[in-house]
Amino acid sequence: MRAVIVSEPGGPDVLSLAELPDPEPGPGEVLLDVAATAINRADLLQRQGHYPPPPGASEILGLECSGTVAAVGPEVTDWQVGDQVCALLAGGGYATRVVVPAGQVMPVPAGVDLITAAALPEVACTVWSNVFMIAALRPEENFLVHGGAGGIGSFAIQLAAANGSRVITTGGTPEKLDFCRELGADVTINYRDEDFVEVVKERTDGHGADVILDNMGAKYLGRNVDALATEGRLVIIGMQGGSRGELDIATLLRKRGAVVATALRARPPADKGAICASVVEHVWPLVSDGQVRPIVHTTMPLDQAAAAHALMEAGDHSGKIVLTT
Amino acid sequence: MRAVIVSEPGGPDVLSLAELPDPEPGPGEVLLDVAATAINRADLLQRQGHYPPPPGASEILGLECSGTVAAVGPEVTDWQVGDQVCALLAGGGYATRVVVPAGQVMPVPAGVDLITAAALPEVACTVWSNVFMIAALRPEENFLVHGGAGGIGSFAIQLAAANGSRVITTGGTPEKLDFCRELGADVTINYRDEDFVEVVKERTDGHGADVILDNMGAKYLGRNVDALATEGRLVIIGMQGGSRGELDIATLLRKRGAVVATALRARPPADKGAICASVVEHVWPLVSDGQVRPIVHTTMPLDQAAAAHALMEAGDHSGKIVLTT
Repeated sequence: MRAVIVSEPGGPDVLSLAELPDPEPGPGEVLLDVAATAINRADLLQRQGHYPPPPGASEILGLECSGTVAAVGPEVTDWQVGDQVCALLAGGGYATRVVVPAGQVMPVPAGVDLITAAALPEVACTVWSNVFMIAALRPEENFLVHGGAGGIGSFAIQLAAANGSRVITTGGTPEKLDFCRELGADVTINYRDEDFVEVVKERTDGHGADVILDNMGAKYLGRNVDALATEGRLVIIGMQGGSRGELDIATLLRKRGAVVATALRARPPADKGAICASVVEHVWPLVSDGQVRPIVHTTMPLDQAAAAHALMEAGDHSGKIVLTT
Repeated sequence: MRAVIVSEPGGPDVLSLAELPDPEPGPGEVLLDVAATAINRADLLQRQGHYPPPPGASEILGLECSGTVAAVGPEVTDWQVGDQVCALLAGGGYATRVVVPAGQVMPVPAGVDLITAAALPEVACTVWSNVFMIAALRPEENFLVHGGAGGIGSFAIQLAAANGSRVITTGGTPEKLDFCRELGADVTINYRDEDFVEVVKERTDGHGADVILDNMGAKYLGRNVDALATEGRLVIIGMQGGSRGELDIATLLRKRGAVVATALRARPPADKGAICASVVEHVWPLVSDGQVRPIVHTTMPLDQAAAAHALMEAGDHSGKIVLTT
């Protein structure tokens, strides 16, 4: 198979295509002919040497893909050769073939083409597991997501809006904020000009955000806790603003709040399988009926992985960057 | 009625008895003839002026009591004059009469005398709501509670042990740790000599604590996060070690951990009612059959409230300090 390899930790230009042996599906695993993969911020960190794959996972980048089932290992009963699917991966997506536990394989939602389906597994599983399974966002609640124009953000806005929640988001340019409103955000905040804590309080009549999905970590920790409602839940899934921050326990205690930090990739396959099953049950119907759309910024061929990483790092995109094999 | 009043914020000697008008039960409320109340750390803070009662609550100290129903307000159907009960209060327990929402009144568990029952509501509701309702401690999990010889700690040890969990606790003297082992602690740690993180890891084969009940706040925040197991839950219910601490988000994220800070007193009556109902259902049977005992350090008359506070502040007690009317 062809695969993108990392010659050494570094910038986008350390990525190049190489010929590698095909992986083989073990018990409970499925071999996919990859149609497309999509880029995640974790891929950039892994390329830089900051985010090693979990034990047992492929060294190849790529946390999601779409494709066709090429072979099934022993004990696999849910999938057959020829099925068109998408999958949540622990690694290995930047390749023409990948092996994945059968529980992390999902059908392509009705009405979504196979290439676009590659943009769904990470955002759908991340948003659904964190905002709904962990933080249990309710329809009548206020939801704040930072970076609403990104892959996670644009999916979170749509899913929370479809849930009936009031959606508040932050972004860095008027164009990105326009895009977030088109996706269903009720309130948009330009973090360059405005204090999100003030705006959240003002626009919720002092109530605050019941659930916050955060990718900034330390930089926003204090303000996120300030923006939380009573019994609010802050879910941290990224540390783009650093990893050590001061926690104001008195404020958190007064609000009876929770701070959860989590990452999808390191979860055991059984957990991922449960998340995928829940996504297929709860999220795919919303995708199929058009309430929640996969947002693809651009599609590029796999041999342009370096350029795609540079595009992601520039930060001007809205939605996902997809790579086709 | 007679009640303990606070002449001005200060040490134990600002407490004295006074004659005050009887409270009257409103709709959904019950008037109790108080048999006994018990001292909580929050009472010391309130006496010092650091912990004002929540809006609408009595200015009088006292977060729990036992007694006899003296009158019921409109819309109360569950209780009748003469019932012997105990109750979770938002305040007002240091008095011969107190009014409380009917949902916060509980029967005295079978086999417990009326005076001793005053020592149960705060510890039972605090431990049950935080360790079981919020943190969902499971039988196969490791539970760490700090200050195991105190009122909360001694109840938490027993309840977690009755649940089948492995119980680890900290304390400052060999006598206190002996007491904790008698209550069912599997592992005891003298925090003066030992690093609790090391001991927890060593005694759980590197697994860590699945649930931690903490009363220290900032001082233990970093070490508590270090001691957490994967998917561990740290519940902070006190800030005896300060309120602002550094949170290592990277470690928390790697463990997919949660930090919850909460306080029982400020919760709305509906929440307290739900907690009390759950305590009566799940905890009272364990008290009645002797698996979980109310631990009373000593019983003193209400006019000795100042001496009782001084005793609590000295920190040499094990279990609850009860005041009788």
